[in-house]
Amino acid sequence: MALFKLALAATTALTLMAATGAQAEEGMWTFDNFPAAKVNETYGTKIDAKWLNHIQSAAVRLSNCSASVVSPEGLVLTNAHCVIACAQDLSSPEADYTQNGFFTTARTEEKTCPGQSAEILTGITDVTKEINAATSGLTGEAFVKALNAKASELEKAGCGTDQTIRCQVISFYQGGEYKLYKYRRYSDVRLVFYPEYKSGFFGGDPDNFNFPRYNLDAAFLRVYENGQVVKTPNYLKFNPNAPKENDVTFVAGNPGSTQRLMTVAQLETNRDLTIPVSQLQRSELRGRIIQFMAQSPENKRIGTDVLTNLENGFKVFYGQQLALNNPAVMEAKRAEEAALKAGMSAEDKAAFGDPWADIAAAQKEVGDLYFPYYFLEAAPTSSSLFTTARTIVRLAKEKPKPSTERLPEFADTRLPALEKRLLNPSPVEKPLDQIQLEFRLLKAREYLTADSPVTKLLLGKESPEALAKRLIDGTKLTDVAYRKQLIDGGLAAVQASDDPMIQWALKIDSEALAVRKQYEARVTGPTRIASEKIAKIRFKAYGTSTYPDATFSLRLSYGKVTGWEHRGVKVTPFTQVSGLYERATGVEPYELAASWKAAEPKVDKSKVFNYVTTNDIIGGNSGSPVINAKGEVIGAAFDGNIHSLGGAYYYDGTLNRTVVVSSSAIAEALKTVYDRKALLAELTGK
Amino acid sequence: MALFKLALAATTALTLMAATGAQAEEGMWTFDNFPAAKVNETYGTKIDAKWLNHIQSAAVRLSNCSASVVSPEGLVLTNAHCVIACAQDLSSPEADYTQNGFFTTARTEEKTCPGQSAEILTGITDVTKEINAATSGLTGEAFVKALNAKASELEKAGCGTDQTIRCQVISFYQGGEYKLYKYRRYSDVRLVFYPEYKSGFFGGDPDNFNFPRYNLDAAFLRVYENGQVVKTPNYLKFNPNAPKENDVTFVAGNPGSTQRLMTVAQLETNRDLTIPVSQLQRSELRGRIIQFMAQSPENKRIGTDVLTNLENGFKVFYGQQLALNNPAVMEAKRAEEAALKAGMSAEDKAAFGDPWADIAAAQKEVGDLYFPYYFLEAAPTSSSLFTTARTIVRLAKEKPKPSTERLPEFADTRLPALEKRLLNPSPVEKPLDQIQLEFRLLKAREYLTADSPVTKLLLGKESPEALAKRLIDGTKLTDVAYRKQLIDGGLAAVQASDDPMIQWALKIDSEALAVRKQYEARVTGPTRIASEKIAKIRFKAYGTSTYPDATFSLRLSYGKVTGWEHRGVKVTPFTQVSGLYERATGVEPYELAASWKAAEPKVDKSKVFNYVTTNDIIGGNSGSPVINAKGEVIGAAFDGNIHSLGGAYYYDGTLNRTVVVSSSAIAEALKTVYDRKALLAELTGK
Repeated sequence: MALFKLALAATTALTLMAATGAQAEEGMWTFDNFPAAKVNETYGTKIDAKWLNHIQSAAVRLSNCSASVVSPEGLVLTNAHCVIACAQDLSSPEADYTQNGFFTTARTEEKTCPGQSAEILTGITDVTKEINAATSGLTGEAFVKALNAKASELEKAGCGTDQTIRCQVISFYQGGEYKLYKYRRYSDVRLVFYPEYKSGFFGGDPDNFNFPRYNLDAAFLRVYENGQVVKTPNYLKFNPNAPKENDVTFVAGNPGSTQRLMTVAQLETNRDLTIPVSQLQRSELRGRIIQFMAQSPENKRIGTDVLTNLENGFKVFYGQQLALNNPAVMEAKRAEEAALKAGMSAEDKAAFGDPWADIAAAQKEVGDLYFPYYFLEAAPTSSSLFTTARTIVRLAKEKPKPSTERLPEFADTRLPALEKRLLNPSPVEKPLDQIQLEFRLLKAREYLTADSPVTKLLLGKESPEALAKRLIDGTKLTDVAYRKQLIDGGLAAVQASDDPMIQWALKIDSEALAVRKQYEARVTGPTRIASEKIAKIRFKAYGTSTYPDATFSLRLSYGKVTGWEHRGVKVTPFTQVSGLYERATGVEPYELAASWKAAEPKVDKSKVFNYVTTNDIIGGNSGSPVINAKGEVIGAAFDGNIHSLGGAYYYDGTLNRTVVVSSSAIAEALKTVYDRKALLAELTGK
Repeated sequence: MALFKLALAATTALTLMAATGAQAEEGMWTFDNFPAAKVNETYGTKIDAKWLNHIQSAAVRLSNCSASVVSPEGLVLTNAHCVIACAQDLSSPEADYTQNGFFTTARTEEKTCPGQSAEILTGITDVTKEINAATSGLTGEAFVKALNAKASELEKAGCGTDQTIRCQVISFYQGGEYKLYKYRRYSDVRLVFYPEYKSGFFGGDPDNFNFPRYNLDAAFLRVYENGQVVKTPNYLKFNPNAPKENDVTFVAGNPGSTQRLMTVAQLETNRDLTIPVSQLQRSELRGRIIQFMAQSPENKRIGTDVLTNLENGFKVFYGQQLALNNPAVMEAKRAEEAALKAGMSAEDKAAFGDPWADIAAAQKEVGDLYFPYYFLEAAPTSSSLFTTARTIVRLAKEKPKPSTERLPEFADTRLPALEKRLLNPSPVEKPLDQIQLEFRLLKAREYLTADSPVTKLLLGKESPEALAKRLIDGTKLTDVAYRKQLIDGGLAAVQASDDPMIQWALKIDSEALAVRKQYEARVTGPTRIASEKIAKIRFKAYGTSTYPDATFSLRLSYGKVTGWEHRGVKVTPFTQVSGLYERATGVEPYELAASWKAAEPKVDKSKVFNYVTTNDIIGGNSGSPVINAKGEVIGAAFDGNIHSLGGAYYYDGTLNRTVVVSSSAIAEALKTVYDRKALLAELTGK
């Protein structure tokens, strides 16, 4: 269902499982370093620069997912779960699109998804030298600041203030390389087709990360600019026929974040502290949201999107935890590290020292710093109204400074998107937001204790429940005009505001920034520097035939259609439409949508519904086009099997599988179930 | 607050942290092996057999806690949190004793706590030879069966059918020794004094396992028999003066379960599978109960006890997980194991083989067997109505067999307590029970997947929500008379019943018993046998100056009043009544009870409220008398500090602390706050 929607902010990242040699089909390759020769040799394909350029020009990055242009009229294919937030935003108590689907017959019915954007990568420039020159010899906070300043300067130089293009400096190979990615950006993305919840999310959370599956997890958007449809020759042909077993498949999309080159010390921090603590909180919040939703149909409506994200995030990290708790995995990582270390020349040892020990030392700091950092700087942002307040407060403080002196997220190049986000008119559901804020405040007191200065700063003499209620009840930040007034008024307006959420954000801000600075100086900075050293050692040892860790930037992976076998159970790679009807129990989440029930007599039950491939993907890849050797779209990736969850840390080609909604099911559904003849005609060019 | 209430069923268990030598003050000693000479030498005390006998004769085991007789009229001191369930059971929407407290001025007002019992240990007999003879040469299921049969036979021989005595064969030193414990049992235990929630649980969950503390976590019960107060010369004198820093302290009580001699393989199973999975579920259920309680005052009333248990359990296992995630702890365990192994003679090696490897092999099976076992046999019992149904079903199946052929919990010696439990008239709150059952069914489907045969057996074509609702709505098992009718009618009545819960319990029973049998044959049995071998190897290596793991049987620990220092923060051992008023914010859980607010002008604020000692205790010790060198009660243990949570696996005397509500605070509260002069006079003999 939703593995491959971006669950995490992309972090800085690096390169591949090199010591033992990348497995066949392993890798999330950048378009400027795709191993075309190897693939052509293995699969008899004819991948060349033209083929790659064509794919790149039609591959779309959404704000949290992947997608592809599939018609000359700007039609975009992605997953239903990638646009559920849009469907929710467009809904009201009278029209529940999240549950009932959103269907159009004419372009005039297409509605803009608040806050959504579509970006197409148009160029990649190497800026490693410039970055290295600017950061040379620096460490800690000074390093981070210089890096951010230079990146910001390069982004500005590349894109200026043109809001239709976006530049981003991205670190690859853990700082071994820096590239400037330039995107054509479209800010008016409209919803065209989104199926009912019972169809797009059939099987719900229990089927998530499992296979066999029967999900029409597909949706269509359309790109507009200046009120007009964006016409383009750069689109992928939609082939409504399913592939065959062992057919080659390509996936072009934006994997969000992998940690395949983390050192053992970093993996241990994830295993023993950050993942367990985040999972415990996610579980408790999940329980609260489920019970909240059980209270009324309206609560159920407004809670669905939040719950879906929580449950998906839970499974992602559950799988990661299982992988890290597997002693064999840690043993392999340890051996890989030892081998790389043992292979270092005396010269390298003199030049680099022991960067693994440096990282281990920085990780030790996490134990002391994590909770204050998390509860002051990170956790409160799970309240959307607080996030708005903090962003307005910090914007007011940062904007008067020169761009390079600001916090990186307030650099000139980031401001247009940031201000757009602040003025996004999506409704905020106060009861839900209150639960989220109250919950994080409760957890702060629990994990830090009532005697901690951080708890005292957050709560004063109030209880978490009362404080959250007072802030949420009293804030006017749901009003776009009020937000604009504060933004335009700058720090004076912010300080003079009587909005309780603004005042609370102001109150905790200095201390929050202080713990963030401390965390960067003692953890993030030193880790980044040591990681770069390891990246250089790794380059020397294993050459350049490697892929970098995922960074939510465009990648291409290759693989094939095939099932797997585990504990004696053989799983075949295809499901058919007939299986949907067999699996239905009449009860959620196995209840058929009314449309599918009605269509049963006429639908072609032999059509392939979902299938699995060996492509190496991860969260952020949701909605990615699955492409055949001819460059045609044959489905949209929407999930992974249970074994794919360790993919954050390693790829295991015998078990990891991508789960795809087939083009054949999409075409059959549009034709027989939803009667969307115009959309189907546009898609198939007929 | 509640660390030391028994959170877990006591498991079979063993001996001490011997390889590195027990630390000073380490140990939960049995009364027949207390190191009196060592203690007398260190502390200048005069502990002798008479002193020990006196303590033993006044130490009380409640059904889930510890306590002590403190007057010749059968008055018993324990913790408020040990009787919260009783207060809840006695409550109604009109009289909320849980929140408002339960106070009496005359004996006629004392009310029986449903299901509660008080047991006093009267004798210990060594039955190791008998058990060994009965199990010699047996392995796996045969071993478990023979052991249970022999234990049951010995218990019956020791106690017959007299319901005022109870016999229990207890395994010590992981089967190195077996003892028959004989208790005088009282089944009519009445509530005398239970303070308001705001007083007994001041600071609530956030202060739980922290110090400084200000909890009046004390309550009084009285033991009755045949409608009369039980008079006894065997009681501990109550000394209303607090101890001084470094004073020696003894704690007599029933620590529930420690795992100090678990092998590394077992600890890894806890660390990587069973604790994480249980914590994730506990967290989600906690979120559901909190949100459920927020819906109405009545929901809050009925949910309080369940939530308190969940939150306490959460912290207990959170602390255990932190201990196990500490590489230094695992390294020490590994070294200890290696040293013991290295010290084995060739003869021992031939006799015992490699029992550590045997345990590791059995632990490997847990990965395959745990979820089916957990979700069929263990998890559904979190619904109290299901537990009743299953017990009635199994009782009907087992009772016709000879006692030794039955499941051990249905042996003749266990039947009286079991039938009493089945006919316990405590009210069952159906909405809460429904959440619990629904939740476990949801988790079964989540962890096992919808395609698992276990999920299909549990759910059929129903959803977890609908099934739980149907079973809870439809069951008549809340009616004691109906339960009695089914019990009396035996299997025929059970099979003929149209009660949906009974029918569902019947439906899943064979498969549940099959996974249990499999788990015992492949995990529990082999582990027990190998553990006994290790216990024997350990005896040979370290002699007999050791203590066995906790088994919820009577133990005595010694220590002293002292604070601790951690990360530069020095914590002093005492708090005073004045601190309560300073800490109060006016908001839950830091809101003063009305009684304490009113008493502020007259209460003696210099009195010691809570204090900490180095005594080695664990869950089950809640309510234990804290005793001075003269054998007088100077407080009741009610919690541990945050560092004590690793005590399940190891004792660290520099940091582990027991938290005590002082006799001085209890006396001051009875006198000034609650005006209970008669109770105070009875207590102090004045």
